[in-house]
Amino acid sequence: MERVLKQGFNIDYSYNIYFTEGIFAPHNKLLSDFFQQRRNPDFKQKVLVVVDSSVWKHHPNLNQELQDYFKDLNDVVLAGPPLVITGGEVCKNDPQALESIVQAIDEYAVDRHSYVFAIGGGAILDLVGYAAAISHRGIRHVRIPTTVLSQNDSGVGVKNSVNYKGKKNFLGTFTPPVAVFNDYSFLATLDKRSWLAGISEAIKVALIKDLDFYNWIQAQVEDLPRRDSQSMKELIYRCADLHLEHIRNGDPFELGSSRPLDFGHWSAHKLEQLSNFEVLHGEAVAIGLAIDVIYSYLIGNLTESEALSVVNLIHQLGLPVYHPILSEVEGKQQLLKGLTEFQEHLGGRLTVVLLEKLGKGRDYHHIDGDYVLQAIDILRDFEKEYNRLDEVS
Amino acid sequence: MERVLKQGFNIDYSYNIYFTEGIFAPHNKLLSDFFQQRRNPDFKQKVLVVVDSSVWKHHPNLNQELQDYFKDLNDVVLAGPPLVITGGEVCKNDPQALESIVQAIDEYAVDRHSYVFAIGGGAILDLVGYAAAISHRGIRHVRIPTTVLSQNDSGVGVKNSVNYKGKKNFLGTFTPPVAVFNDYSFLATLDKRSWLAGISEAIKVALIKDLDFYNWIQAQVEDLPRRDSQSMKELIYRCADLHLEHIRNGDPFELGSSRPLDFGHWSAHKLEQLSNFEVLHGEAVAIGLAIDVIYSYLIGNLTESEALSVVNLIHQLGLPVYHPILSEVEGKQQLLKGLTEFQEHLGGRLTVVLLEKLGKGRDYHHIDGDYVLQAIDILRDFEKEYNRLDEVS
Ligand SMILES: NC(=O)c1ccc[n+]([C@@H]2O[C@H](COP(=O)([O-])OP(=O)(O)OC[C@H]3O[C@@H](n4cnc5c(N)ncnc54)[C@H](O)[C@@H]3O)[C@@H](O)[C@H]2O)c1
Ligand SMILES: NC(=O)c1ccc[n+]([C@@H]2O[C@H](COP(=O)([O-])OP(=O)(O)OC[C@H]3O[C@@H](n4cnc5c(N)ncnc54)[C@H](O)[C@@H]3O)[C@@H](O)[C@H]2O)c1
Ligand SMILES: [Zn+2]
Ligand SMILES: [Zn+2]
Repeated sequence: MERVLKQGFNIDYSYNIYFTEGIFAPHNKLLSDFFQQRRNPDFKQKVLVVVDSSVWKHHPNLNQELQDYFKDLNDVVLAGPPLVITGGEVCKNDPQALESIVQAIDEYAVDRHSYVFAIGGGAILDLVGYAAAISHRGIRHVRIPTTVLSQNDSGVGVKNSVNYKGKKNFLGTFTPPVAVFNDYSFLATLDKRSWLAGISEAIKVALIKDLDFYNWIQAQVEDLPRRDSQSMKELIYRCADLHLEHIRNGDPFELGSSRPLDFGHWSAHKLEQLSNFEVLHGEAVAIGLAIDVIYSYLIGNLTESEALSVVNLIHQLGLPVYHPILSEVEGKQQLLKGLTEFQEHLGGRLTVVLLEKLGKGRDYHHIDGDYVLQAIDILRDFEKEYNRLDEVS
Repeated sequence: MERVLKQGFNIDYSYNIYFTEGIFAPHNKLLSDFFQQRRNPDFKQKVLVVVDSSVWKHHPNLNQELQDYFKDLNDVVLAGPPLVITGGEVCKNDPQALESIVQAIDEYAVDRHSYVFAIGGGAILDLVGYAAAISHRGIRHVRIPTTVLSQNDSGVGVKNSVNYKGKKNFLGTFTPPVAVFNDYSFLATLDKRSWLAGISEAIKVALIKDLDFYNWIQAQVEDLPRRDSQSMKELIYRCADLHLEHIRNGDPFELGSSRPLDFGHWSAHKLEQLSNFEVLHGEAVAIGLAIDVIYSYLIGNLTESEALSVVNLIHQLGLPVYHPILSEVEGKQQLLKGLTEFQEHLGGRLTVVLLEKLGKGRDYHHIDGDYVLQAIDILRDFEKEYNRLDEVS
């Protein structure tokens, strides 16, 4: 006789995203309050800190600040010296980087009631988040993102990952952090490209979800590239908020096939790879957005002037809308192959978000390669025209 | 000015545990119905099957049965030939075993809408479950446990893991399977030790949660060792049910420090390790239960005769209650060190479940080493007496 037992339960996930400046400054109580609220009267919780090598280099006082800040805390103790890992995509490609974090967790006996902190760009957060998620079946993970992109997008979400044999994000988990501290002061040391690159994700989420925000970004087209603090803080806050709202009300652990936040990303992932990661993620997204916006125009969802206004906005912000690889024969083929890989990574049926109109995305299950190539030609001509105008002015 | 965004959502988890025989027999519709209910009209889902090498060897028709069964299905297709992995703890110690599964997932393009099946003992299920959980941030995982222990305990739960530098279960995640198929017919090929070893987990959960079940096991003391099907099927079903109920109503992802289902396990984990895994997990648990039951008596929670009745039951079922390593000087020291390691793995304060009375467990935060050593001496004397009686009879 056949029998069945049914299992079912649900798990609540919650965490806060704090916006601050100078998180380790002596007078800043955000972190000490956080620890105090979660203190355990029976023992001191340990904190293992992993830091992005560029952050370490550009913020020479960070180590001293960390030591001083933790010396004054009663509820927690540093597990050991901060672990410095080479930042950028390279750390997600290097199995040794993952190993070194797991090893530190083992060596310093960092347990499930301890914390693993990550201070760095999106790549370091992805790597450290993954190491924390798999060690002891999950150690509490705190993120301190240090790039625009990680503060407004990757760092506030629920995913972590590393690459496997060059395949982007092949290994990873869905594991929410216990807290995110967006410390604006870290952004001061970003180079111009990284500063700008993070803006793409804001344009992305505005285009698919929030026309008001899109218009607001339009209005900041001069302030953002000249590194105006107020504009950037507001951009990060609103963009993070939209991402959080989407995750919460959507499909947080992506059990379905749809992934609206990946608007502009199917081609971006491929372009990053084709350029050997010379093109930054945010730059690739800028180009991917341009392609998908023109595509949305070609299938009749946007007017020509709407599409052009988006492409112009991207350009005026200082972001690229085109890359020569895309016009090479091999590049074109690879790009279209990227659609299949995108589908495989998400699983199931091909699902790509395009614009139904400005401020509203919609799932599509078929992408017409001819339109993609047409969009690329249009963008190539734009780029030419922009360059001509830049020379003239 | 500091700002905060609050994130919060919850995730529902549910899966069924089916009890059947001959899951791949042509007339058995359990699995084909399962696939049909979850079919996707747009594409065929892939199934990667990973099999325990002992199961592969002892069930020489399995491959043919699998091929025949899947040939007749319309909704899914085998991703590739079954992947056979050496069963037992060795597979959790071998990074290459993990790698070979991840590699197959990559090679056969097994995506998030595909399935990774594991057919085998608890070790293979832990390993394959882990590989599935980290690949593409989680591929649907189906378990077909083939030992008593994995059918009544490890295979029905939400955990997976591998060992790291000899540290048991150091890496892993909490990731529920999408289904479990407990196929009784696999158990026919278990050797005597493995057949008996799984009974320990039933005694464990009965002692801490269900006096009725404990008395029922008492009544099967002759049927179980002589491999009576009806008794074993019932034991597995009731034991699985109690485990499921505990997970559901407790702390499924173990965010606290308490882990009642680890009754008898703090010493068991250590003994497995000390014996170089020569002692099976279930055997070590039998001894661990005996230690903790005597300990519960020594602190006044059980009467002497209650404690002895448990020790006798374990012995009569054919399971050990003692191991000579425990009386060696080095063994004693190591055992007590095991308490600290147990605490570190769980994190936070030491929390060990002991018996408040038969059928009811309770958390304790201190373990007295002297009582432990006294319990071991008592059990050594028992074992001597049992051996003497066995010789006489
Ligand atoms: N988990 C997610 O949901 C998610 C979402 C989007 C992107 N991502 C990932 O995020 C990564 C990209 O993140 P990113 O854009 O932050 O880039 P990044 O992490 O690659 O960092 C770019 C460079 O900036 C350096 N850097 C970081 N902070 C700095 C600072 N304050 N000052 C000076 N230099 C600094 C880094 O060392 C690196 O060299 C990719 O790996 C991408 O896959 C993840
Ligand atoms: N995930 C959890 O919640 C959880 C809970 C308890 C135990 N476990 C783990 O489970 C593992 C122990 O599992 P186990 O007791 O099933 O032992 P096992 O998986 O180590 O298997 C024991 C032996 O039996 C063989 N075998 C398996 N099925 C067989 C069959 N039908 N016929 C003949 N031989 C067969 C295996 O190849 C192996 O050699 C340990 O690694 C333990 O840590 C996990
Ligand atoms: Zn992105
Ligand atoms: Zn066990």
